[in-house]
Amino acid sequence: MKGRVYLVGAGPGAPDLLTLRAADILRRADVVFHDALVHPETLALAARAEKVAVGKRSGRRSTAQKFINKRLVDAASRHATVVRLKGGDPMLFGRAQEEIDALRRASIDFEIVPGVTAATAAAAELGVSLTRRGLSRHVALVTPRAAQGERGNEWAAAVLAADTAVLYMGAGLAPAISAELIARGMSPDTPVALVENASLPGRRAVLGTLAELPALAQRAGGGPTTVLFGEVLKDAAVAEEIEGLLRRA
Amino acid sequence: MKGRVYLVGAGPGAPDLLTLRAADILRRADVVFHDALVHPETLALAARAEKVAVGKRSGRRSTAQKFINKRLVDAASRHATVVRLKGGDPMLFGRAQEEIDALRRASIDFEIVPGVTAATAAAAELGVSLTRRGLSRHVALVTPRAAQGERGNEWAAAVLAADTAVLYMGAGLAPAISAELIARGMSPDTPVALVENASLPGRRAVLGTLAELPALAQRAGGGPTTVLFGEVLKDAAVAEEIEGLLRRA
Repeated sequence: MKGRVYLVGAGPGAPDLLTLRAADILRRADVVFHDALVHPETLALAARAEKVAVGKRSGRRSTAQKFINKRLVDAASRHATVVRLKGGDPMLFGRAQEEIDALRRASIDFEIVPGVTAATAAAAELGVSLTRRGLSRHVALVTPRAAQGERGNEWAAAVLAADTAVLYMGAGLAPAISAELIARGMSPDTPVALVENASLPGRRAVLGTLAELPALAQRAGGGPTTVLFGEVLKDAAVAEEIEGLLRRA
Repeated sequence: MKGRVYLVGAGPGAPDLLTLRAADILRRADVVFHDALVHPETLALAARAEKVAVGKRSGRRSTAQKFINKRLVDAASRHATVVRLKGGDPMLFGRAQEEIDALRRASIDFEIVPGVTAATAAAAELGVSLTRRGLSRHVALVTPRAAQGERGNEWAAAVLAADTAVLYMGAGLAPAISAELIARGMSPDTPVALVENASLPGRRAVLGTLAELPALAQRAGGGPTTVLFGEVLKDAAVAEEIEGLLRRA
């Protein structure tokens, strides 16, 4: 038999920010290969499925990815409904292409189920729209982490060209990020926000300037964190709201 | 009384790409102010609510937006659960900030419920990840449409700096967009894709180059369309997949 593989976005963290389609697919899944950060309540929807954690450990990425690809292909020969469950949206910073290519090579039917990505979940926490009439009409979603043999534009150029920028997986590099952007001409007073554990009970948000980013990042815990940059954050009502958010956290 | 206002993302089109949280809020809503493009099945979830279409007509935008703001504030004085339902995610090209600011000024409690945005739904249709190891580590989400008195970086600079770019509300401007990007130095051979009605039964996708963009846009119908740019689209497997998609459409 040849089953179907669903690459499913689990959303930013909260189990009720899953889509109805994803919930339906999980309920009828035979096997679920999931990232480390997927919420236990989301996994529990897949009541009849075997659950396999395939969270990648840093430093062993490409080996692990090949192994995941192979397991997806193998599973589709034994099960009707195979789910690869990823945090956020599969098509943003989810390494989905390597899995899609492997499924195509093996002529296995697949479907991508999009999800809510961390950037808009962070914006929702802050009560700050990423676009804003007269102030921001584009948003860059960026990771400063490079893979071996990386091509393409530099991350810093993308941040500088954007009205609003959201960095994924960048909080741990805050001192280098702040220094690089200031060296490239971004104002040290550019408003920044860090949002940790967006949509989860342990959420925290801090607001400051680009110059203060390293100090702000030190106040973050170990949860998934996005860093936002841009004039949309420069707003007294936002500062007040963030304080409220910090008190709740 | 003072009710709570929920700014809710309805997702890219398909009713089952709504989040579980959004569905729950709609089910207990007293009144729903919705965009023109929200799916009838999504609205039907709000079984007990009064539904008010507040789709803005072009050319009358700012008057209409002030009117929506006022209606949200008024509704919160009469109802416990007020929903403002927007296509995609409220914080991306949704004019949410103007509504948030009005609610803050009136001291009305509000919550933002993020949704799946059109860019990742389009990527799901294409089977092409917007980021890709070794090829794309940032994505720009851009609208080329400017409001009066617009500040901020130019849209073209944001597209040029991005490894992958997704234009919202740009298909109607395809000839000008193609000309401007080529004049600014982008290769006429840059791969582009147009995805219309992503996630809906009437979906269509066409693939080509930046130079061909005006001709590709003429093949689109009147549905919501995103335009994607970048090397991630340059892939034989993609071309094959797109043809399959066109046949299904």
